Amino acid sequence: MTPEEFRLAGHELIDWIADHRASAADRPVRARTGPGEVAAALPDRPPTQVESFDAVMADLDSVVVPGMFEMQHPMHFGWFPANAELSSILGDLASAGLSSVGISWESAPALTEVEEVVCDWMRQLVGLSDNWFGSITDTASTGCLTAMLAARERASSLSQNHGGLQAVESPLVVYSTKQAHSSVVKAALLAGFGWDNIVMVDTDPVTFAMDPESLASCVAADVAAGKTPAVVVAAVGTTGTTAMDPVAAIVEVASTVGAWVHVDAAMAGTAMLLPECRHLWDGVEGADSISWNPHKWMGTILDCSLFYVRDTDQLQSVMSTNPSYLQSSADGEVTQYRDWGIPLGRRFRALKIWFQLRLDGVEAIKDRIRRDLDNAQWLAEQVVAAPGWQVLAPVDLQTVCVLHTPVLRGESVDGESGASEPMTGQALDDHTLSWVRAINESGEAFLSPSQLNGRWMARVSIGVLSTEHQHVAELWKCLQDAVEVNNLQR
Amino acid sequence: MTPEEFRLAGHELIDWIADHRASAADRPVRARTGPGEVAAALPDRPPTQVESFDAVMADLDSVVVPGMFEMQHPMHFGWFPANAELSSILGDLASAGLSSVGISWESAPALTEVEEVVCDWMRQLVGLSDNWFGSITDTASTGCLTAMLAARERASSLSQNHGGLQAVESPLVVYSTKQAHSSVVKAALLAGFGWDNIVMVDTDPVTFAMDPESLASCVAADVAAGKTPAVVVAAVGTTGTTAMDPVAAIVEVASTVGAWVHVDAAMAGTAMLLPECRHLWDGVEGADSISWNPHKWMGTILDCSLFYVRDTDQLQSVMSTNPSYLQSSADGEVTQYRDWGIPLGRRFRALKIWFQLRLDGVEAIKDRIRRDLDNAQWLAEQVVAAPGWQVLAPVDLQTVCVLHTPVLRGESVDGESGASEPMTGQALDDHTLSWVRAINESGEAFLSPSQLNGRWMARVSIGVLSTEHQHVAELWKCLQDAVEVNNLQR
Repeated sequence: MTPEEFRLAGHELIDWIADHRASAADRPVRARTGPGEVAAALPDRPPTQVESFDAVMADLDSVVVPGMFEMQHPMHFGWFPANAELSSILGDLASAGLSSVGISWESAPALTEVEEVVCDWMRQLVGLSDNWFGSITDTASTGCLTAMLAARERASSLSQNHGGLQAVESPLVVYSTKQAHSSVVKAALLAGFGWDNIVMVDTDPVTFAMDPESLASCVAADVAAGKTPAVVVAAVGTTGTTAMDPVAAIVEVASTVGAWVHVDAAMAGTAMLLPECRHLWDGVEGADSISWNPHKWMGTILDCSLFYVRDTDQLQSVMSTNPSYLQSSADGEVTQYRDWGIPLGRRFRALKIWFQLRLDGVEAIKDRIRRDLDNAQWLAEQVVAAPGWQVLAPVDLQTVCVLHTPVLRGESVDGESGASEPMTGQALDDHTLSWVRAINESGEAFLSPSQLNGRWMARVSIGVLSTEHQHVAELWKCLQDAVEVNNLQR
Repeated sequence: MTPEEFRLAGHELIDWIADHRASAADRPVRARTGPGEVAAALPDRPPTQVESFDAVMADLDSVVVPGMFEMQHPMHFGWFPANAELSSILGDLASAGLSSVGISWESAPALTEVEEVVCDWMRQLVGLSDNWFGSITDTASTGCLTAMLAARERASSLSQNHGGLQAVESPLVVYSTKQAHSSVVKAALLAGFGWDNIVMVDTDPVTFAMDPESLASCVAADVAAGKTPAVVVAAVGTTGTTAMDPVAAIVEVASTVGAWVHVDAAMAGTAMLLPECRHLWDGVEGADSISWNPHKWMGTILDCSLFYVRDTDQLQSVMSTNPSYLQSSADGEVTQYRDWGIPLGRRFRALKIWFQLRLDGVEAIKDRIRRDLDNAQWLAEQVVAAPGWQVLAPVDLQTVCVLHTPVLRGESVDGESGASEPMTGQALDDHTLSWVRAINESGEAFLSPSQLNGRWMARVSIGVLSTEHQHVAELWKCLQDAVEVNNLQR
């Protein structure tokens, strides 16, 4: 494709995107296609002829768009806010337009140095000290795996450079909770620790946060058994309820045995842009690594996950490679991000944040986060005040965990109503999943059901860019209506 | 940023990219900034005010562009062709414009299904059987790590679900060669195998390909010593010389002990679009996994690395997670790509290939690959025919490994010239690095020096989209001139 052909098609595509975004609320939240429908609409053999841009765009409209979940819809309250600010899309496009590849500083000095500067800006914006050094990875899953590997090697005196994990005698142990994200267990398993060496520490029954006393007991027991506590993952904002593991207390326990502390703040890191939220990760300066994703609530388009460490030498001792074909005269004077993580080649992701911060301004981002916190508090107040409804976990951020419990009226022999009792067990799960599914299938709003203490609940995750108070109010009406219909149908 | 603001800025940015690409050859190949210069030109505090799009673009021009290596320059012969077809940039932009996030099939059905279809198209285009199933990862480094983890778990009967690698008694061994990419050793170390369990198999002194007899001996010795051969990495196109490890013979050895065979065809996979090249990976159907990067020679913009396996059940048994908040009614009927690799969230990368294949057509891509193969043969012929010049390795693809050896004239006592002998050792290395550096610093062309058998050589990697025969001819003149100047200065 020539630059002139690109210019023509590019203008069309920009207009298409502007229109697509402007009309997000007009489409259903959920995709309209069932399993296999998109694939069935595409040829099963690769194209042999050159096609026109119009033909490709027609398929984008008719095949792809109906098969997309509308993450930018103001009534999307599922999973997490997967925001994509249009300013960051421009940064992403600029990165593509520069068409460079970071495999070493020399291969793209600006890619490396803008990433350094932007990671440092973000560090300052969330109030971390200058003891932290950041890089951008694709996801917090990768960040967590990177932390596990660094921790494994610290606990085993760089076993990878000798006999590997198999040669390490004392079993290395990982500590987390059942409330932590699935990527924690996955990373521990991939790092080779083994399921038997993953300890699920107790959580507080009210806050669902890690109990540091339970952690201390587990650690003490493992040490007594000849095991080596290697890493504790502290979730700052768990996936289910945004529970806040007490980082300061965790760091205190971990420091007694030299265990690595990884702070997973994938969603909640954005809240730390607000000084009034930073008490939620009090003690973070004592951790060893932190992951947080601007590509969630902050609104930088995926993929853009920040990974900070304090000891970059240690990280590089685990991740470094220095083949002859990547050496240059600048070595030793510059940062080589290939030695900070798993992939070698990297995109110029820093531009996504660079464009967003400069074009939108950080104050506007902070105002939006405060709006979402207020909306969550408002919803929680409505829920708590409504008969039959409960909020199941503290609302520290923008997630409200909701349960509606119908009251079953007992029937006496003579047909008159007897004693009433709340629905429980499987019936309650069926009720919850049924009314949540009805909302989701309507296409008008979406929330992801999730389990807490083995029971299903409705999880309302607030914070899409376009979600204003009116949308949350609309959702609350939607929840009440759905429950009503469900009650009538039962 | 509103859709209308995005529309205005987006049009400007599209024009900027078209102009930037059209003028690639007018800029120096190498970045013009030294270590720290880009960072020094940026504020060390985050911006506090909203800035205009013009201000950001002005900085892109004045700070970022001078700090970028021009990968799309027709005189770029370094590392590998990091091509970025403008058609694939449109696909990348479309992906950003859809602003979705793949964390499950439900979160973006079209993202999952277009990826399945496109990976299958690519499978057909390189002549693989329908026993292979593909997904898109960021880089071949990640693909290699994924293969190592799958291999580790197959060799250890899913040790991660029990005591982990520490509980496995028989040491697990990895086989590769010194010619393989640095990511192979890195992946083996990160997977926990340990340096002591990485065996560097001998290579053929002429082809630099793995010697399957040496592999067989190593494997037999390890088995006799009670070790477990776990994985062999076959490089189809090594980084230094594009040497072709003999896949069929390697598969035969590996199959006797049940070792996993991972084929790293990161660069060379593109050549398999041409039926006449497929003999180079003969035997590939017997391997267990394959990585190849459309984001190199084929020209899909980074990041777009294909990872194929035959046994998807096995891969999923290693990579699967299924937390309640990601479950949906479609489970069991659909592909969940989160269970095929390390990261959870994924971009809609398949659109980059979808746009490229349809807009450019595969025949045009194949013609271009053939052009590059011809150009490499032409250059090799010139080099071989020129006194003092050598081609150090077979030119199977588009990389020509070049050495120029000056002849030292001995001087007799009476001042007349004595016996002549070729330069060797450190003096030859200094000569090579010196003339290559002179070319690179001129900004007129770029090649990455690399080591072969412990000696530096000039490595000419041909295949940038815009590199025509005239550019390769120009490079050959450039090499001869640089050596001439270097000889005079000595």
